Amino acid sequence: MIRFNCDYSEGAHERILRKLAETNLEQTPGYGEDIYCQEAGDIIRKLCKKEDAAVHFLVGGTQANQTVIAAALRPHQGVVAAVSGHINVHETGAIEATGHKILALPSEDGKVRAEQVEELYTAHAKDESFEHTVQPKLVYISNPTELGTIYTRGELEALQAVCRKHKLYLFVDGARLGYGLAAEGNDVDLPVLSSSCDVFYIGGTKVGALFGEAVVITNKELMTDFRYHIKQRGGMLAKGRLLGLQFIELLRDGLYFELGAHGDRLAGRIRAACEKKGYPLLVYNTTNQVFPIMPDSVLKQWKGKYSYTHQGRVDEGHTAIRLCTSWITREEHVDALVRDILNS
Amino acid sequence: MIRFNCDYSEGAHERILRKLAETNLEQTPGYGEDIYCQEAGDIIRKLCKKEDAAVHFLVGGTQANQTVIAAALRPHQGVVAAVSGHINVHETGAIEATGHKILALPSEDGKVRAEQVEELYTAHAKDESFEHTVQPKLVYISNPTELGTIYTRGELEALQAVCRKHKLYLFVDGARLGYGLAAEGNDVDLPVLSSSCDVFYIGGTKVGALFGEAVVITNKELMTDFRYHIKQRGGMLAKGRLLGLQFIELLRDGLYFELGAHGDRLAGRIRAACEKKGYPLLVYNTTNQVFPIMPDSVLKQWKGKYSYTHQGRVDEGHTAIRLCTSWITREEHVDALVRDILNS
Amino acid sequence: MIRFNCDYSEGAHERILRKLAETNLEQTPGYGEDIYCQEAGDIIRKLCKKEDAAVHFLVGGTQANQTVIAAALRPHQGVVAAVSGHINVHETGAIEATGHKILALPSEDGKVRAEQVEELYTAHAKDESFEHTVQPKLVYISNPTELGTIYTRGELEALQAVCRKHKLYLFVDGARLGYGLAAEGNDVDLPVLSSSCDVFYIGGTKVGALFGEAVVITNKELMTDFRYHIKQRGGMLAKGRLLGLQFIELLRDGLYFELGAHGDRLAGRIRAACEKKGYPLLVYNTTNQVFPIMPDSVLKQWKGKYSYTHQGRVDEGHTAIRLCTSWITREEHVDALVRDILNS
Amino acid sequence: MIRFNCDYSEGAHERILRKLAETNLEQTPGYGEDIYCQEAGDIIRKLCKKEDAAVHFLVGGTQANQTVIAAALRPHQGVVAAVSGHINVHETGAIEATGHKILALPSEDGKVRAEQVEELYTAHAKDESFEHTVQPKLVYISNPTELGTIYTRGELEALQAVCRKHKLYLFVDGARLGYGLAAEGNDVDLPVLSSSCDVFYIGGTKVGALFGEAVVITNKELMTDFRYHIKQRGGMLAKGRLLGLQFIELLRDGLYFELGAHGDRLAGRIRAACEKKGYPLLVYNTTNQVFPIMPDSVLKQWKGKYSYTHQGRVDEGHTAIRLCTSWITREEHVDALVRDILNS
Repeated sequence: MIRFNCDYSEGAHERILRKLAETNLEQTPGYGEDIYCQEAGDIIRKLCKKEDAAVHFLVGGTQANQTVIAAALRPHQGVVAAVSGHINVHETGAIEATGHKILALPSEDGKVRAEQVEELYTAHAKDESFEHTVQPKLVYISNPTELGTIYTRGELEALQAVCRKHKLYLFVDGARLGYGLAAEGNDVDLPVLSSSCDVFYIGGTKVGALFGEAVVITNKELMTDFRYHIKQRGGMLAKGRLLGLQFIELLRDGLYFELGAHGDRLAGRIRAACEKKGYPLLVYNTTNQVFPIMPDSVLKQWKGKYSYTHQGRVDEGHTAIRLCTSWITREEHVDALVRDILNS
Repeated sequence: MIRFNCDYSEGAHERILRKLAETNLEQTPGYGEDIYCQEAGDIIRKLCKKEDAAVHFLVGGTQANQTVIAAALRPHQGVVAAVSGHINVHETGAIEATGHKILALPSEDGKVRAEQVEELYTAHAKDESFEHTVQPKLVYISNPTELGTIYTRGELEALQAVCRKHKLYLFVDGARLGYGLAAEGNDVDLPVLSSSCDVFYIGGTKVGALFGEAVVITNKELMTDFRYHIKQRGGMLAKGRLLGLQFIELLRDGLYFELGAHGDRLAGRIRAACEKKGYPLLVYNTTNQVFPIMPDSVLKQWKGKYSYTHQGRVDEGHTAIRLCTSWITREEHVDALVRDILNS
Repeated sequence: MIRFNCDYSEGAHERILRKLAETNLEQTPGYGEDIYCQEAGDIIRKLCKKEDAAVHFLVGGTQANQTVIAAALRPHQGVVAAVSGHINVHETGAIEATGHKILALPSEDGKVRAEQVEELYTAHAKDESFEHTVQPKLVYISNPTELGTIYTRGELEALQAVCRKHKLYLFVDGARLGYGLAAEGNDVDLPVLSSSCDVFYIGGTKVGALFGEAVVITNKELMTDFRYHIKQRGGMLAKGRLLGLQFIELLRDGLYFELGAHGDRLAGRIRAACEKKGYPLLVYNTTNQVFPIMPDSVLKQWKGKYSYTHQGRVDEGHTAIRLCTSWITREEHVDALVRDILNS
Repeated sequence: MIRFNCDYSEGAHERILRKLAETNLEQTPGYGEDIYCQEAGDIIRKLCKKEDAAVHFLVGGTQANQTVIAAALRPHQGVVAAVSGHINVHETGAIEATGHKILALPSEDGKVRAEQVEELYTAHAKDESFEHTVQPKLVYISNPTELGTIYTRGELEALQAVCRKHKLYLFVDGARLGYGLAAEGNDVDLPVLSSSCDVFYIGGTKVGALFGEAVVITNKELMTDFRYHIKQRGGMLAKGRLLGLQFIELLRDGLYFELGAHGDRLAGRIRAACEKKGYPLLVYNTTNQVFPIMPDSVLKQWKGKYSYTHQGRVDEGHTAIRLCTSWITREEHVDALVRDILNS
């Protein structure tokens, strides 16, 4: 079986394993207070051109989302997100478990628009019984989104503008950031991201690390006591250096961006095959996720050969699926899939 | 600087790193549904002689404690623990963050006694205004405790008896279990542990793994939907096999117990040196933590040479400290420390 | 100004005030353990024909919703509700504050349909990554709904059937129950309600009491330790008898149903006037809330004369509003309003 | 049976009932936005000599404690309180249910001392692993305490000083404030209280109201969005004017203080009888609670005649109990009790 169901089927880039082995018997302080976390943080601050950003390393995405959001909000405040946002659908209510409502906005392509935030904020502010409704305070977006689409610089800046205007925080979930930054048509880079949002993270788990998300906080209000929150939410790794070491390897010389580009290129080949064959896409994007609408007869043939994610029934004979490439997807696996698409 | 401040200063046992490298490019399902987690679970069930136990792998101890406790309790129920229990003092209120009160019991040696539980339960049950107080429902103990002491089989069985009598759950935090099971004077093994409590975990982080705690649930009531809870609390590792692989290596041929014995033996050498020199122990135990009461003058000399944990001021000139050995502590480091103790 | 903006603008029915005065200096046990709460509970059990129902009295609706839901669910479970449900829009995230997600279903008329519940449940159960999503466990409906519509006996029984089939709880918020039971076209009564849901409440605040909601639990699973939950959520009134006394007066001889009928009849007059005048209704119902779509020019004239609730802009020149009658609305106030509608 | 078990066995002062009746059919806005709440707030601001204080009315004490504390703290922060504090023992974990740990301090007489706060704060600040422990942020005291003792002005000011020094909030639970302010030896008044703490409440439930606590916030940081918190915690009474009306009656001409003095004077008679008879007091105070240590033989005789609260077994033949007087305790009931004490 060849796995195209997600981007975390394998371990880590070999350089990461090597680095872990090399440093294995060194003694360091625990809980992220070691020299490697320090160094990784410095690399990130430099890449982001934000010398005063706070950088924290967490093991996974749900943890990062939960910790950032719970740290940012007071009890009566809620998170604005796309209805398809990861926190709204795939985290078993982790945000609600910290006490906060997700104010879900409709979205066809996984993105939240500045106008939607403006409208939602204004509706709350003007409501006669505003104190009876949750106060919007933080806007959560992912880049790329759950549907693989990416925000343009203009879109990010528009979101930033509406957030600043209404004193909302803007938080970018970058679990697949590497695939976004390397994508065709992307005009966002780390400095743009850093200066347009209050907090974001650089996802490692899906882009070459064993695990790990680097949370970058640029808004001073959100920096205070952040390590307490990490500990309280169960996210403070005893051997924290494992996180620092991985991000050093990923980011010291551009490996992270190469890995992202690899995944995007191979997804592009699959996408092109689908288009050539005439299989429509549920949503178009240029990152590592492809969402073709497939005849059920073809999917039947793929059983046991390829794994993919079920995205939804479209009609009697068709199903939308997700095919995911990754930093380590093999060219020959894509060759095989492309062949099978074209010959189907 | 030689670190004796904790048992997680280094990476992992070399066999673990090797195993991770060997399997690195295999594709497996995520979130702990891979063959390695399955295999590790089977090994654990066999070692515990509990074929129907549920085994789940979590990254760290706070996460494990939080997830087990929140999954077990209804909102008005609380956790009984020693006042020195890890959940009561070193987890930044992680349990309270899930909504539950910790009902703390006094303890000199870190242990909870069956009689204390009986008394607390009865006081609640007899209270005229019992509905105005938190209902005790789960007893949390660690073995070894925060003070390195271990429970005897008799003590565990007495706790089990009182818990069964009053329908309380018994939960054993085994973050340092390897050091407990290998300790001089210990009469508990995995089958005893499995049959005397409702849920416990085998700690990997402090006994040779990069990270990881294997939660073993023996009470069917606690098994239902447990994976939802793991996900909600941010503890479901995407590349879950990393946990399975580590526990396979630690447990397939007794490595875990050897590593525990190594730490205990070296701690024993330090303890003996303290006793020989006449430095009293805050609490006596036979595991990998030593708690001598040291003259401040000696500690001053150690500055920059050895790291340790501050345990508390005892009097004007003396301080109780904690010296920790581990699965990888080097004999020559202990030689040096013993020499410095004896010559101090 | 004549208030039609809500159904809690006045105090209580005079019989209630008289009863409070008569019993004022009696000494009774606190926290709802007095003879009046006992008597009120007995009356309710009899009216519901459920001898083994548990009855508890809470001060208000948000409290009742929060307490029932938090008591019923485990952490990973969520509440199914109409998107317009009171808990989803008008309680400042009170449910999320107890840790639970609201799984909102689209609804034109404020009702949840059995088929929607079936579909939602099945989608969750069939989801490949079901453990990553919130588990539906309780269905929350209001009768009458937020839009004043009422459930038929058939609809309730269909909801009950799907809930039983999937082991979901059915919870009916009856904040305006009096207006529902007295409504034209209603075929539900207390025994029907009691036997078709697991828990519901009889709202006093909006139907003649100073305050108070009588929670009736018919499912034994939900009865356990319920008083602990009331206390924990801040809902245990010290002088609990105030609640018992009010429900005795409302329910001992049918006053509650008369008060409901009064409100419904007067709302009917307003509704008829709107229809006669040609003002369309946002949603049609037969209870005490009327939702006409009004010309802004008319609303301008009403300023300072009548208060109402803003329901939403419909187009450039029209606004949907809510006009509420109540148990104590004066005939002459309705006369005036009807006149102004017809002459507008 | 004559009830001395608590101070909320009866209804309300007759003036309150009269006021409710007089205003019963007036129409007012709901949720505390009526003229009576406004007027009551003005009276309180004047009595406190704090023109810019925010005043909110809540139904009960647990609700008030929970709402204030949850509104004031971020997730990793905890409440400092006496181990005997109401929030620590008699609210079914209501504070923990909002996610916060109570940092309990030992106390013989129910009071928290400034030195204890200083010590606790410093211990946290100096702890090597401070981020692994809950951050103290709010000091909760009651005046009178659970044991009926009262704070002197000096004690309050010392607490204020340590709180200001370390940026902690000082919160005074005044559920029995009326009995404290009227007590012999008391040197605190509303202006002193207002200027020495950040938030406190004037308890109505136990001092002549049907129910109600007036929360007075003097620190601007705590004022923001407070009404959202009230709503979220289920504490926003629909007919909020019921609260305003009661506090107007209690406070417009000193009735509240007279009622407190009445309770204190009668408790004094009981206390004197105990002392005369030689029954020792568990703790001495001058407010409305008396804590004699009684021979079990006497308590046996009282069965069915007097109700009291069990406070704890003292030795084989003696039990500490609590006898409570109130704003409405009858002289002849105290006559009887005093007689029975002296003749026992």
